[in-house]
Order: sequence, then C-alpha cells, then structure tokens
Amino acid sequence: MTYEMFYWPGIQGRGEFVRLALEAAGADYIDIARETGAGRGVKAMQALLASTDITHPSFAPPILRAGALLIGQTANILQYLGPHLGLVPEGEAARIWANQIELTVTDFVLEIHDTHHPISNSLYYEDQKTEAAARAAKFRELRAPKYLGWFECILERNGRGTHLVGSSLSYPDLSLFQIIEGLRYAFPNMMARLEPTIPGLVALHDRVAKSPNIAAYLASPRRIPFNEMGLFRRYPELDA
Amino acid sequence: MTYEMFYWPGIQGRGEFVRLALEAAGADYIDIARETGAGRGVKAMQALLASTDITHPSFAPPILRAGALLIGQTANILQYLGPHLGLVPEGEAARIWANQIELTVTDFVLEIHDTHHPISNSLYYEDQKTEAAARAAKFRELRAPKYLGWFECILERNGRGTHLVGSSLSYPDLSLFQIIEGLRYAFPNMMARLEPTIPGLVALHDRVAKSPNIAAYLASPRRIPFNEMGLFRRYPELDA
Repeated sequence: MTYEMFYWPGIQGRGEFVRLALEAAGADYIDIARETGAGRGVKAMQALLASTDITHPSFAPPILRAGALLIGQTANILQYLGPHLGLVPEGEAARIWANQIELTVTDFVLEIHDTHHPISNSLYYEDQKTEAAARAAKFRELRAPKYLGWFECILERNGRGTHLVGSSLSYPDLSLFQIIEGLRYAFPNMMARLEPTIPGLVALHDRVAKSPNIAAYLASPRRIPFNEMGLFRRYPELDA
Repeated sequence: MTYEMFYWPGIQGRGEFVRLALEAAGADYIDIARETGAGRGVKAMQALLASTDITHPSFAPPILRAGALLIGQTANILQYLGPHLGLVPEGEAARIWANQIELTVTDFVLEIHDTHHPISNSLYYEDQKTEAAARAAKFRELRAPKYLGWFECILERNGRGTHLVGSSLSYPDLSLFQIIEGLRYAFPNMMARLEPTIPGLVALHDRVAKSPNIAAYLASPRRIPFNEMGLFRRYPELDA
C-alpha cells in the first residue's frame, strides 16, 4: 500500500513523528504537500482540510490516508501504523503500553510548543516573549526534567533498557529520538545539564540515529531542517 | 470484573471522563482514592504512583486497573474500556475514529486547563492572573469556537446527528457531555454566546444527561461538584 501523508511542507512539527515511522519501516508513502502535480502540494492538503464531503474530517494535520481510511491525530496514526509497519510488538498489553507512552509524548510536545506560545497561536512569538520566558523557565526547571525522567525510568524498567516496548524498535523509540533531537536544537544549554541524568535515552537516541533507514533519511533532503516556524525553536533567551 | 480507578478524590478533572464511561455502562468499579480501608484512599494512589515495582508506571492519574493490566492516559483507558463496556461500535474504522475524536477532546482539555494556568502548574492561579486573562481572551475568541465548531461539524456529518460515532452511545458522546457541562460552569457568558451555534452538541448533552445511568450518577454523591481545584474553574474575570 502507498500511504499518503498530509502535513505542512516547511516544518518537521507533529508530522515528523509520522514521517519517522514511515521512514524507519521503509514504507511506500507520498508526502503530499511537499510534492507537485495533480492532487499534490499544499493546496491539496488545504482542499482536504476544507472539504465538506468527508465524514471523518481532522481537526488539524497530520493526516494519513491508508486505503479507504483517513486518520488524524499523530498518536492515532502511529497506533494504526505500528502493526502494519512492524513497529510495535504483538499483544494487547504491549500495544496499550505503546499508546500510553505515545500519549505522554503528545502531552510533552504540547508543553514544548507552549514554551514559545504560552498565550496564543494566533500571536507572534515576539508578542508573547515575556510570558514565554516565564513559561520556559518553569519548563526547564520542572517539566522537562519530569517528562525526561519518566521516559528514562520506563526505559530502565523494560529489561535491558535498549527499547521502550518489548525487545525491538517500536514507534515510541522513534518519537523519543525526535524529542531528544528537538530539545537539543531548542534548548542546548538545558540538555547539556540534563543529559547526564538520562543516559538510557541518549543511548536510545544514538541507536535510532544510526539505524540504516533512519540514518539514510536524516542525510536526505526529505528531512526538513529544524527552524523557527516549527515545534522546536531555538530562541536563546528561552534557554538560559 | 471489578475495575479499580485511581484519581484525585476532590476533583472531577481528567478522571471524570473515565468515571462517566464506567457509570454509563453500570460497570462494577472502585474509585480507590475516595474509599477508606486497606488498599484504599489517596495514600493507596500515591503508593501506586511512587512504586518502583511497576513495569508500566503512569506519568499521572487517572489510572485504571483491569485485571493484570494497569492503564494510564485518559484516552488510552477509554479506548480500552470502550469495547468491554459496549461504548464504541464494532469495526476498525469506527474505533480509529472514536479515538481520533477523544484525542481532540484531550487537546481541548489541555487548552481549557491552561486558560487558568498559562505559565505553570507549580504556581497558583493568583500568580499568573494577568497571563491567564490574555490566554482566556484568545480561548474565548478563537479556540473554544474552533473546537466546538469541529465537534458540531462531525456530529452533523454522522448521519442523523444524534451520536458522534455510529448510531449508539459511545465514549466520545460522554466526553462531549462533560465538555459542555464544564464549559457552562467555567465560562457561562461565553457559552451563552456560543450555544446557539452548536445546537447538535447541546441536544447531545441533554440526551446524555437524561440517560438513566448518567442521570442517576449526576444526582448521586459520587458526582463531585465542580470546584476551583479542578480542570473547569469559574473565575469570572476569565469569562468577560
């Protein structure tokens, strides 16, 4: 099956968690808004979002088309893709646990986003810099250590600590790779302080980065560089 | 099976979405932190959160124990309970869609929470009132209408518009009941303006409220009143 991915073409954002799963599995997919031609491009995505003919419209991208299914919400897409791409172990308990981890990633992602947009998405960062500085300080002091500490804890408790779920690569491993990578971009000073406390996650990040399909993806033009339009933004004043 | 629910005893909070599903189905459950005796009470919940023996610890309550499974994250708990309690239709497409709706509820819930805590959970509301006023203004103007409009849209597109998924009561219907109920408590002026634009959701809310099990629950002492420790808080200055 050829999957169709719909996400903003200029940023990694939440869509990157889906891209990483598709890339890790070597899946056949089209990143619709980044292509040109009939039924492609950002206009095709906007047409999908605006369509009144869809029974199951999404609140926001990313959206995945998989045959007759149109699926929204990042964690929902990953839960669907997991078994199809071999990116989650068999069994109810493992799948519930993988989803629980991914929903905690989702919560963390929203808190990361709100460090630069604590008042409103409809305002520029420059219009909420004072509030962003206050929120980011609490994020660096309390929230980032709490989330990263939890991910490190569950990694340790999973046997040899090489994967988050079971004994093979799963989609939460890929998401944690992206979290570490993004936080290193956005908060390098904070991460220099925190990384010694999360050696398991750092090692997991490194293994994912070196896995052949992900290494090839990261080196390709398909990997959009981090930038200040996305989720992870480098504003030095937020990383004191 | 007797389910065990772990959540803060003095608030509805995120746990209420789980309580509503258990109550609607007439399920056998123990609301552990609200009971007394051995293995009950808030200390039992705190012991569960602090335990180092659990392979799958939760980041935060609510947590559901279902036999050998210990499940965290509200939407994950509801996705598990749905089929067991008859609160989601059969079939992959319906279940993916129900989960997608519930994850959008989850996003909305976090935005509702952050109207009174835009800077940090570790500070009192009184220490972030100015920022809360700014965030709440954008919430009333942009975010609440966008989310409620989306829920109204998907309700309309689902056949006769009496349920969000399929043709019977499902857990997203219960969650939307709670959203309307909570927003009426926290933002009565905003809701007076918005409700004429969401007649389907208001009718859905009313049907859920009148369904026998939910009506009995709402009239019972098991339903904790809204208060200013919970998710939905009535601060008149945030509801201009």
